[in-house]
Amino acid sequence: MIIKMKAAEEIKVNQVQIKDNFWSVIQERIINIVIPFQEKVLNDEIPGVAKSHAIENFRIAAGLSEGEFYGMVFQDSDVAKWLEGVAYSLAVKPDEDLEKRADGIIDIIEKAQQPDGYLDTYFIIKEPEKRWQNLQECHELYCAGHMMEAAAAYYQVTGKDKLLHVAERMADHIIGRFGEDKERGIPGHQEVEIGLMKLYHATGKKKYKDMARFFLEERGKNPNYFYEEKIKRGWQHWGQYSLKPLDSTYNQAHTTIYEQKEAVGHAVRAVYMYTAMADLAGEDKDQRLFDACLTLWNNIVQQRMYVTGGIGSTMEGEAFSADYDLPNDMAYAETCASIAMVFFAKRMLEIKPDGKFADIMERELYNGIISGIQLDGKKYFYVNPLEVNPGVSGKIYGYKHTLPERPGWYECACCPTNLVRLIASLGAYAWSESDTTIYSHLFIGQKAQMHKANVEVESSYPWEGKVAYHVKPKSDSEFTLAIHIPEFVNAEDENTIIAVNARSVEIRKALKSGYLYITRTWKDGDIVDIQFAMPGRKIFANQRVRDNAGCVALMRGPIVYCFEGVDNGENIQALRIPKEMKAEPFLWKEGVLKGNVCLRMEGYCMEGNNELYSEERPAKKHAELTAIPYYAWANRGENQMRVWMLEEQ
Amino acid sequence: MIIKMKAAEEIKVNQVQIKDNFWSVIQERIINIVIPFQEKVLNDEIPGVAKSHAIENFRIAAGLSEGEFYGMVFQDSDVAKWLEGVAYSLAVKPDEDLEKRADGIIDIIEKAQQPDGYLDTYFIIKEPEKRWQNLQECHELYCAGHMMEAAAAYYQVTGKDKLLHVAERMADHIIGRFGEDKERGIPGHQEVEIGLMKLYHATGKKKYKDMARFFLEERGKNPNYFYEEKIKRGWQHWGQYSLKPLDSTYNQAHTTIYEQKEAVGHAVRAVYMYTAMADLAGEDKDQRLFDACLTLWNNIVQQRMYVTGGIGSTMEGEAFSADYDLPNDMAYAETCASIAMVFFAKRMLEIKPDGKFADIMERELYNGIISGIQLDGKKYFYVNPLEVNPGVSGKIYGYKHTLPERPGWYECACCPTNLVRLIASLGAYAWSESDTTIYSHLFIGQKAQMHKANVEVESSYPWEGKVAYHVKPKSDSEFTLAIHIPEFVNAEDENTIIAVNARSVEIRKALKSGYLYITRTWKDGDIVDIQFAMPGRKIFANQRVRDNAGCVALMRGPIVYCFEGVDNGENIQALRIPKEMKAEPFLWKEGVLKGNVCLRMEGYCMEGNNELYSEERPAKKHAELTAIPYYAWANRGENQMRVWMLEEQ
Repeated sequence: MIIKMKAAEEIKVNQVQIKDNFWSVIQERIINIVIPFQEKVLNDEIPGVAKSHAIENFRIAAGLSEGEFYGMVFQDSDVAKWLEGVAYSLAVKPDEDLEKRADGIIDIIEKAQQPDGYLDTYFIIKEPEKRWQNLQECHELYCAGHMMEAAAAYYQVTGKDKLLHVAERMADHIIGRFGEDKERGIPGHQEVEIGLMKLYHATGKKKYKDMARFFLEERGKNPNYFYEEKIKRGWQHWGQYSLKPLDSTYNQAHTTIYEQKEAVGHAVRAVYMYTAMADLAGEDKDQRLFDACLTLWNNIVQQRMYVTGGIGSTMEGEAFSADYDLPNDMAYAETCASIAMVFFAKRMLEIKPDGKFADIMERELYNGIISGIQLDGKKYFYVNPLEVNPGVSGKIYGYKHTLPERPGWYECACCPTNLVRLIASLGAYAWSESDTTIYSHLFIGQKAQMHKANVEVESSYPWEGKVAYHVKPKSDSEFTLAIHIPEFVNAEDENTIIAVNARSVEIRKALKSGYLYITRTWKDGDIVDIQFAMPGRKIFANQRVRDNAGCVALMRGPIVYCFEGVDNGENIQALRIPKEMKAEPFLWKEGVLKGNVCLRMEGYCMEGNNELYSEERPAKKHAELTAIPYYAWANRGENQMRVWMLEEQ
Repeated sequence: MIIKMKAAEEIKVNQVQIKDNFWSVIQERIINIVIPFQEKVLNDEIPGVAKSHAIENFRIAAGLSEGEFYGMVFQDSDVAKWLEGVAYSLAVKPDEDLEKRADGIIDIIEKAQQPDGYLDTYFIIKEPEKRWQNLQECHELYCAGHMMEAAAAYYQVTGKDKLLHVAERMADHIIGRFGEDKERGIPGHQEVEIGLMKLYHATGKKKYKDMARFFLEERGKNPNYFYEEKIKRGWQHWGQYSLKPLDSTYNQAHTTIYEQKEAVGHAVRAVYMYTAMADLAGEDKDQRLFDACLTLWNNIVQQRMYVTGGIGSTMEGEAFSADYDLPNDMAYAETCASIAMVFFAKRMLEIKPDGKFADIMERELYNGIISGIQLDGKKYFYVNPLEVNPGVSGKIYGYKHTLPERPGWYECACCPTNLVRLIASLGAYAWSESDTTIYSHLFIGQKAQMHKANVEVESSYPWEGKVAYHVKPKSDSEFTLAIHIPEFVNAEDENTIIAVNARSVEIRKALKSGYLYITRTWKDGDIVDIQFAMPGRKIFANQRVRDNAGCVALMRGPIVYCFEGVDNGENIQALRIPKEMKAEPFLWKEGVLKGNVCLRMEGYCMEGNNELYSEERPAKKHAELTAIPYYAWANRGENQMRVWMLEEQ
């Protein structure tokens, strides 16, 4: 199958302004609460939060301050990720003061850069003689990658190129050191590949794309690379927690990217790599590389993903485990890994606009990603379990990582900063544009300035199936508007209506691989109306998923629901969803859940005697059940929670 | 409630000869395979098995050999437990050679004992100046306790008192050191309390019972005892794996025995302590102490025990976790902990012959204990999960301890040696005798020489409900034979027949707290016949046990059944037990399971599509299901196994 490669091109964050009853609130929360909070953390101004020292490290490296390096070996990346988030937030909401402060930090970063382009404060300050000896643990390439992403973003939004030049000099330094005929190193934590691709997109310089390809294709050629590196250097950075150099699956270095058929190891590392692979495949119209991406994509979404979009089901190594091994109460499902899936999905969409990629992007965004942030924006989950049980979760071996409430800021601040950069740049994920077509991937209320037209989207999503596209073409040439119709929309349903200027579109004809294609000579004021019913739906898991046997999960639209103890009593496992379910949506009217559409239904509660084991069959009693959106769980104190519920027996 | 204390007295192992179609085979396996194998291990004669050095340590301490101490700090206990097992095995099957070799080892032990009575080869050889400074980690009292048990057993069976005197000298040394007005130490691993009680039973010397009471009652008076001990000595034995001295629940030192209301911490430590408490409560007719035992007993059997009798549900600390936290696929359920429950149950029965104690003893013996030993007697489980899944169990974090096959001998050889001493002395658990009554606790075929009568039991148990007691009284005084009737026997069922000399007994009248009381002037040749139906039964777990929601376990008689992949296909979680189950028992005719009564039934298999998540309801197809006794699992290669099965929906 020859596919049409690189169908669409990258959308810049400042082409889109989100105005959505659902997402604008979250974007504002991110911009008004998380970015300033994180800035204070980076400057060590928040008492009670683990010391960061990240900006101070740059000051010391720049000779502007005296002192010792402090923090994780990859502490620099916190500053880079914050800067990237700031860049996107400036596109959403210009803020002169913030931009000035960011410029100031960029000045310091520039001063910290060494004459040869090298930039990593840990090694500059602490062990300059040990540079580039420990790619496995010391994350110099990882930090460089994040700085490249920040630089590209800052340049894209503000037009300022100081950080871009810093990133280019570091990239050139890397190019000078690594390659086919040079040192055949690979990063211990993939990320520089994405950074190099972004630098390529920002500058058009092919050498950065080539370098990304080198790192991707070198990986796994020598599965013992990190082991040999360790022997050669004779020291290790992480002491007793040191990464096992012989476990090359952990960072996907066990075989080449073309031979990898299963998603293994650390989920974030893996999906960052797949993201860069997809980006490169699209740029180079590389069918073989795209096929490699597709194999890994399919393994994740067909065997290794929670219904919430969570991936990486085991705590050990924050990693993928085995096909269909998806324990709900032990899930790792790191917020960052779900975010990475959006990166990956978007790159895949840019090659091939297929609803299956957009559906996953939507699943991640409305569920496993925003579950990572408390509704007030102040606390975060790294781990997103699908079941917690008070007294067990967070306390007992095996469940210690599945905390029943969001704990706040972490020493390793990856997830909150990743949330910031994704959500602040959300608009860029909603669209693609090719020569002939504008693609809309997400039903988010927004104004988008595309090459062929300005498009304004009004949306009642995700609570109602009602979206309208107002198209204002920029010329009178014919073009196509391709709108992703989520997989759950029933095209056969009489309530599903798609109309252009109030005239019905024949859906079956217009719908192809999850996208509705409307080709015409657009006129200013043209409106595409989309309406569909959103009943509560029962989802069954594959019979091979042992943890969901006999269970259903509930969804409505793109939202996965869960049941909490505070609404349903202390014994959620005793509740049963009826075979003939009538789930009634209702708007939560007050308190922290205000504005959420929840589900109410008649169900059952099994009541047994007090014995631990008994021959007496428990009785089936009627019970009223209430489900809330999964992402909104754990906002009302510690209590039990389950996504997968047993059906009536 | 005033209970009749110490209703019954200890039965000596040589009063009973087991002749049972079920247990004799296991006893023979233990005596013919495990004891000789372990002897070779202790003598370092088995290549490929972790070096023991345990006997060599005694030789070195005795000055009979040169060298360094090797092994765990409690290596001595392996020799003691082996000697105890040998003693019981000599009662079952006299063996002059074995006895001679055991005598030889006892000679060495005697020589190793120090002039002041002290006996612990680790400290004698390695760090004599550090004796008694680290009760938390160094297990001197633990080893002493096992030596006391061995000594009492060896004396009981052979009449030889050399080891008894060794144990008494060590006990006297301990009495000289610890007590109210002396050092207020407590053992880090309870066991010496049981040993002291056995020494008391063997010698009648009250000082040993008093010392047991001191250790039991001192415990928890100072919850910081081990912390203060650590500060005082300034060293630790176990390096990075050191026990946390502030976690005083781990070894039940957090509060006094009277204030402990929940079974917490390391399960074996806990139940060894409860065993000594119950023994002492019976001896001293101590109602308060018995009440303390009963509280802890109830917490275990009503909230913290698997249906197999397994206890200690978490791997971390091999410990009790929380009420109703009984994960099947992560269970620890150590074989030793189930064995300890038999010790505890028997002591409780000696105080109060209540069927609830005997039922648990039976549950442990037929399920969670003998699952620890492979059917050929050659490999052992320490951990007894109720579910394993190939590719996950034994491999992935959280499940690494739940091995899908028995791995053989361990460096820490606690479970096999505990199995030996329990099963070789099984006869002693089957009976009690008081002034007025002979109690039969277990339906095991055997000949028992009691004070009031010789009783011969013929039994088809556990495969058929058919048992006969042949009574041969020793005098013509009236006495009572009280026979435990398992809780599952339906007294109302017309198939349940109890008859004395073919004349029916009115069961409802004769049955009290699980025991059938028959009082008469017995004549030689009197026969009590007991018959009852044993249909396959569905067991429901308490609705608070989240891991068994919607599930049933199957039992027939005392046997818990499980489903293995080899009989039921690769996807056991997709199978369903029908609401109206017709489980047909059948005798397995060949191969490793030969002789086991298994269950066959019509059931269902849920078949869904290939999607990971789908709105399509899986179809319910007919399937033939086969269950085998739980204890016999993992004897046919690695495959899936489940005890708890979903019921038809």
